[in-house]
Amino acid sequence: MKININRLMSAIESYATYGQVEGCGVTRPSFSKADYQVRNLFIQELKDLGMTVTVDAIANIWGTLPGTGEKEKPIVMGSHLDTVPNGGKYDGALGVLVAKEIIETLREYEVTLAHPLQIVSFTAEEANEFNFSTMGSRTLSRRLHAEELRGASDKTGTTLEAAVKKAGGDLSKIDAGQQNAMAAYFELHIEQGSKLENQNLSVGIVDSIVGIYRDLVTVEGQQNHSGTTVMKNRKDALVAAGEMVAEVQKLAIALDSDTVATIGKFEVFPNAANIIPGRVDFTLEVRSADKTERDALIRRIHDSFHSIQEKHEVNLTIVNSYNMQECDFDKELINFLEEAATEMGIPYAVLPSMAGHDAMNLAAMTKSVMVFVKSINGISHSPQEFSLPEDIEKSANVLLNALLKADQTL
Amino acid sequence: MKININRLMSAIESYATYGQVEGCGVTRPSFSKADYQVRNLFIQELKDLGMTVTVDAIANIWGTLPGTGEKEKPIVMGSHLDTVPNGGKYDGALGVLVAKEIIETLREYEVTLAHPLQIVSFTAEEANEFNFSTMGSRTLSRRLHAEELRGASDKTGTTLEAAVKKAGGDLSKIDAGQQNAMAAYFELHIEQGSKLENQNLSVGIVDSIVGIYRDLVTVEGQQNHSGTTVMKNRKDALVAAGEMVAEVQKLAIALDSDTVATIGKFEVFPNAANIIPGRVDFTLEVRSADKTERDALIRRIHDSFHSIQEKHEVNLTIVNSYNMQECDFDKELINFLEEAATEMGIPYAVLPSMAGHDAMNLAAMTKSVMVFVKSINGISHSPQEFSLPEDIEKSANVLLNALLKADQTL
Repeated sequence: MKININRLMSAIESYATYGQVEGCGVTRPSFSKADYQVRNLFIQELKDLGMTVTVDAIANIWGTLPGTGEKEKPIVMGSHLDTVPNGGKYDGALGVLVAKEIIETLREYEVTLAHPLQIVSFTAEEANEFNFSTMGSRTLSRRLHAEELRGASDKTGTTLEAAVKKAGGDLSKIDAGQQNAMAAYFELHIEQGSKLENQNLSVGIVDSIVGIYRDLVTVEGQQNHSGTTVMKNRKDALVAAGEMVAEVQKLAIALDSDTVATIGKFEVFPNAANIIPGRVDFTLEVRSADKTERDALIRRIHDSFHSIQEKHEVNLTIVNSYNMQECDFDKELINFLEEAATEMGIPYAVLPSMAGHDAMNLAAMTKSVMVFVKSINGISHSPQEFSLPEDIEKSANVLLNALLKADQTL
Repeated sequence: MKININRLMSAIESYATYGQVEGCGVTRPSFSKADYQVRNLFIQELKDLGMTVTVDAIANIWGTLPGTGEKEKPIVMGSHLDTVPNGGKYDGALGVLVAKEIIETLREYEVTLAHPLQIVSFTAEEANEFNFSTMGSRTLSRRLHAEELRGASDKTGTTLEAAVKKAGGDLSKIDAGQQNAMAAYFELHIEQGSKLENQNLSVGIVDSIVGIYRDLVTVEGQQNHSGTTVMKNRKDALVAAGEMVAEVQKLAIALDSDTVATIGKFEVFPNAANIIPGRVDFTLEVRSADKTERDALIRRIHDSFHSIQEKHEVNLTIVNSYNMQECDFDKELINFLEEAATEMGIPYAVLPSMAGHDAMNLAAMTKSVMVFVKSINGISHSPQEFSLPEDIEKSANVLLNALLKADQTL
């Protein structure tokens, strides 16, 4: 049994027209006009496939196909249909549409699973104006609660409550009902990196999501006139912070591993050509699948910051702002995927995800796993985001066959 | 003959009440309400001293005392009464008020000079919203023309034309009249640096104003996801720019001279914690009294930028945005100041000014020179700006006696 790649590719193109701006990619944030339109399309298509459709309290869309009745808990496949501004056609939508294609394939082959089969499109996976990324899956997994969501609004003043209601949800029902019991969750997604491409592989089997650690760092020196303050009397916050940036890169590269460290946000005060910078605020982010390596790197970075601070006689404040622990995916589901790929003669890599996904929240509720599809040039969140049909086809078929294995075994 | 330091200090305190905000220094930019008020005060006080007051086309305020008639061209003393936001009591006002004190002293001692004696308060010396610093002296010296000034307006939409008119000027008369012929220009100012304090000296005799060179530098790397892009595949614009900042500091310090190099404005794009910076824009400023050393430093800095660019495989653009040549003050006036200080037994240093002043524009029209007063802790453009009465007194008396020498000799 194999998916129909032509049907899948035309679904991808059709969904990409929602929020598409010529030459500027797809702009379809959750609760935008394009998002409401694509939700309606998706619901109609699920109904056309004979599925029962429900929209939950946070407006996640669920489609259900009954199983043979042998097993009670559903197996779920899905991802998200929202995009970043000027994003691509694949991030999110690909996982939803591969799940839909698998359902169409099963229907064509007249296969009914032992388990009920569900498809889900999660609300607001991407960073958004309401400041809750992976909003739908976090809410579902009880990691985000009604009282946190209730006060949120976007910059136009639209409340999250109203936006969710318009999509068929209802914030007042969050935390009220029982959490769905599931047998397993599978999510296919583009890699958004270059590891598969570098190894010339179509398919990645994701065994974990890395931990993400973020500090807010403030360097305070002495603001002064750039002309009248001789070099040796300066306490230039930017010079100290610049050395810190260089040091972070040096320490992370020296590991020669997949652990990454980034200074992405960096602001200089007062920021004028003729004033010696008095203060720099920056973020330090470290991501690693290896907790020991991550902690050692953070320690080495902090030590180097303190040395630079002493050398330049500046003040240094480091405040941890975020510390998400790594998440391991389910070993049994990983095995199903590995077996399926091996049986089909498709080479694959087992690798960690360096970005967060809905699947990490699902892992708190059920057996959870992800499949990655090779990204061309590692580009995502961009109109240049691209994956080849042949790589998508192989990955979707690995997922389909792992699903069948899970249905038999779980 | 000596100035009256008590009268001078009470004038400084009195002028500082215009635009003073408790605990936040003096905020009196040109054409602010406080500036219009202090202009009226100054004009009235000059009239009370028996001077003829005129306001020129760019609203510089001139007071004139006739001489004995032996010499035709006036000797001029002055500075500016505008301040930066949250500035101090001394930057600018001190030079105007010392000039006024000298005129009061001459009047008390019933001394009439051979030359007419003028006092001037220049319009908008400090950086301002109309984007023309040293506006009054640049316009007077024909370095700034009516057509450049005419289109300017501040952020509230007030045109420079209206602002100048309210202060008694008239942009339409710029370039029309004859430039004033002068015999000499003396300006006393706080040092705004620590060289005099480091040498334990009250008085500086300024022999030059350094050249100021500024580049706009753009570093372009590759914007990417901070999680999914491994260290060795990155082209991080901030890492390259951070190394450039550190290198500029290293190269400038190695000179062990008064030449200074500063990166003061530094902006990172897109500036988000989870995105590898794709672009950094920054300013490079080099100031030196030694043109050869300055040019060599700029060359070495540019070379180092190109090496860093190659190492990180980023793009680099360097555009020169400002290149003010150094200005030498008049040797004869420097001699008068040195003789006066020596005769009074006041030790002094001869030093360059690392900041621009109205006197550099006057140097294009007449013999021009400056006297510096020791700044405590080298601080200026700040409520903490401070100079001791004893240092002000010595500097003012050196200026008074040099003025008498100039009057006899020129």
